[in-house]
Amino acid sequence: MTTRYQKPKGTRDFYPEEMQARKKVFETIREVTSKYGFSEVEAPAIEDFELIKAKSGEEIRQQMFMLEKKGNEQLALRAELTPSLARMFIEKQKELQKPVKWFALSRMWRYEAPQKGRLREFYQTSVELFGSDKANADAECISMAVDFLISLGLTDKDFFVKINNRKLLQGILDGAGIKDVEETLRIIDKAEKLTKEEFEQELKKIKLNEKQAKTIKKIITTNELKTIDEEELNEEAKQGLSELKEVMKLLKHYGKDKYVRFNLSVARGLSYYTGTVYECFNHDESLRAIFGGGRYDNMVEQFGGDKCAATGFAMGDVTLQLLLEQKGKWPIQEKTVDYYIAPVNENVRKEAIEIACKLRKNNIVEIDLMQRKLGKQLEYAASIGAKHIIIVGDEELKNDEAIIRDMQTGKEKRIKISELN
Amino acid sequence: MTTRYQKPKGTRDFYPEEMQARKKVFETIREVTSKYGFSEVEAPAIEDFELIKAKSGEEIRQQMFMLEKKGNEQLALRAELTPSLARMFIEKQKELQKPVKWFALSRMWRYEAPQKGRLREFYQTSVELFGSDKANADAECISMAVDFLISLGLTDKDFFVKINNRKLLQGILDGAGIKDVEETLRIIDKAEKLTKEEFEQELKKIKLNEKQAKTIKKIITTNELKTIDEEELNEEAKQGLSELKEVMKLLKHYGKDKYVRFNLSVARGLSYYTGTVYECFNHDESLRAIFGGGRYDNMVEQFGGDKCAATGFAMGDVTLQLLLEQKGKWPIQEKTVDYYIAPVNENVRKEAIEIACKLRKNNIVEIDLMQRKLGKQLEYAASIGAKHIIIVGDEELKNDEAIIRDMQTGKEKRIKISELN
Repeated sequence: MTTRYQKPKGTRDFYPEEMQARKKVFETIREVTSKYGFSEVEAPAIEDFELIKAKSGEEIRQQMFMLEKKGNEQLALRAELTPSLARMFIEKQKELQKPVKWFALSRMWRYEAPQKGRLREFYQTSVELFGSDKANADAECISMAVDFLISLGLTDKDFFVKINNRKLLQGILDGAGIKDVEETLRIIDKAEKLTKEEFEQELKKIKLNEKQAKTIKKIITTNELKTIDEEELNEEAKQGLSELKEVMKLLKHYGKDKYVRFNLSVARGLSYYTGTVYECFNHDESLRAIFGGGRYDNMVEQFGGDKCAATGFAMGDVTLQLLLEQKGKWPIQEKTVDYYIAPVNENVRKEAIEIACKLRKNNIVEIDLMQRKLGKQLEYAASIGAKHIIIVGDEELKNDEAIIRDMQTGKEKRIKISELN
Repeated sequence: MTTRYQKPKGTRDFYPEEMQARKKVFETIREVTSKYGFSEVEAPAIEDFELIKAKSGEEIRQQMFMLEKKGNEQLALRAELTPSLARMFIEKQKELQKPVKWFALSRMWRYEAPQKGRLREFYQTSVELFGSDKANADAECISMAVDFLISLGLTDKDFFVKINNRKLLQGILDGAGIKDVEETLRIIDKAEKLTKEEFEQELKKIKLNEKQAKTIKKIITTNELKTIDEEELNEEAKQGLSELKEVMKLLKHYGKDKYVRFNLSVARGLSYYTGTVYECFNHDESLRAIFGGGRYDNMVEQFGGDKCAATGFAMGDVTLQLLLEQKGKWPIQEKTVDYYIAPVNENVRKEAIEIACKLRKNNIVEIDLMQRKLGKQLEYAASIGAKHIIIVGDEELKNDEAIIRDMQTGKEKRIKISELN
């Protein structure tokens, strides 16, 4: 119906069925994190904009929900959890056993134009692993992310992970004498969405010479490790290649190699990442990234902590739901009601409530709250899918009895109330 | 350690132990709601300020986190869930089976001075029951709220519920010719916190005559139903008294009468409530209300829906935690790690990972991610409380074996890797 008030743009209401399905998905994710020995944490939904700015720069303000300033604090709704978790880690950096393996499953907000797979309010699984600079930590995270999707019923036919290394990419750009790395990475990131002409145009804009442009084109088409000529690489790129090979080898040990493909053009935005980077897509890449992450060894120090390696990833719920629905794997959860208690009139209300209280120890029980006539009660009980109805009547009560109807078979029988449990 | 960035005022970071305890508490609450046949829902954390204003008036802006206006929407962080759930209910009012029994367990924000039992960001269990104007619905909600606390380990020695009826209170005020009901209710609400002199002062401010002042004093000291002279009441007050008695009778059927006490001074704020109202406190009332709620039969219509009765309550996590901690009932949850897998060197990494993957099907498993020497690994495994360590060494592997150490007994033995599960 027409209502006077609407939910804000880019947000969702979760009615019981949607909520149940979502809870089931989150429960599956939590089970996997638990088996990997990750601990759930949570940070405030509102954060000091200074913290956010330290990671993402002042220009991120455009894409954030900023709060009206009341006291001294300039607060914003968090758009991701990494800065908050880094802040929390630093606060206890000395006392925490390394590696610290944390995850959170909570809400984020971005002020962006809502579109397919992108909302202003969404849930995100955020995973951070602090304290290990080894490829083992990256592989553990990627393996867990893949296990999220497998546990949700997806297979290698449904998704794959593009993997790269920022040192390798950066080293190649440096080697080619490309100075405006940030802008170049931006072009590489969006290259797939551009026509050939648009792409050439973009390269011209950043004034690359012919050889440099060729390097960029090669980067974009490179997706086999063997096509990289190691001899041509500088030290930084060699280091990156070695890290990449190590992660790939470990992922084979995890049995996850068939989900993972090298792709030299994966850059994942700006200056944040320092090593392994990855993004997960459905095969025709008709959806946005399902999850993405990588190594960020400089942030803890940059935020005022002691230098500390870190790696992690994030998976939003919007694209995930689209993919699961496409593949018929989004769970359908129906409400369960074990017993509906139907007093035939208000004289037996006391006994009806007592039966409800007793059965509620072990069952999901509804009782009439409308003082409806019996016929209406039975209609309602059927509409909510109650498995059994217990009809409480004066006559039966005299013998400590009530009538129970099995809604599946339609059969009725008398039961002793004192024997219910 | 000193960090560069702080969490915002009045917010909390949840490290693993705190998070685990909180999850346990929330799980208990969810179990109870489920047994009562309530369904979990969720609404956006950000809401149109027009909606909030419609319920609470423009002046509520002071106490809200307002968002900087970017588009046409003036949004705010929700401070309670009732307006959002009423909006959601109205949107599907025609198709939903009545009664609609909803709850949510989610975050709220209030811009208030942080103090004991009050934070700027908190969790709240919000319960709403739409579609029944019967006392049965109020009693069902109160019984469930009491069952929340019982399930968390509290008893009637720890808390009690003050109950009243707004029609009764309003009728008495009307009967005494008191016009400024809103201000009078405000004074009644805070009377317990005032000295005798301050209280007299407040009464003078609203210009009550002597008889009216006497009425107010009587209201504040009335906490037994039998002291109310029904003959003296006007029709509205009589109706309220009758509703109140009905709820009390039903609560007796629920076995909850020993938790509930009549108290004529419970007003719960402004014009919102229309019938039953209640608030739960610890016995010396040293803490804020643990939960509070009541009937609000006008809001759905006021928000643009068809007229529809409604009742519900809310319970915040901050006071609840204080009370549970005081009573030694706040759960203590320790991290469980079933197995820690320790490769003796990188040559056996493959097999160590394979063992981890295998055991993770049914267990919580950590594996070295730091490439630490064995001694350091064993220290770490002990520090995280691992129940078993599996040491993976070259020699044992030749026989498909590894060494398992039971951390409780300290005993070691060899096991066949292929037999692990």
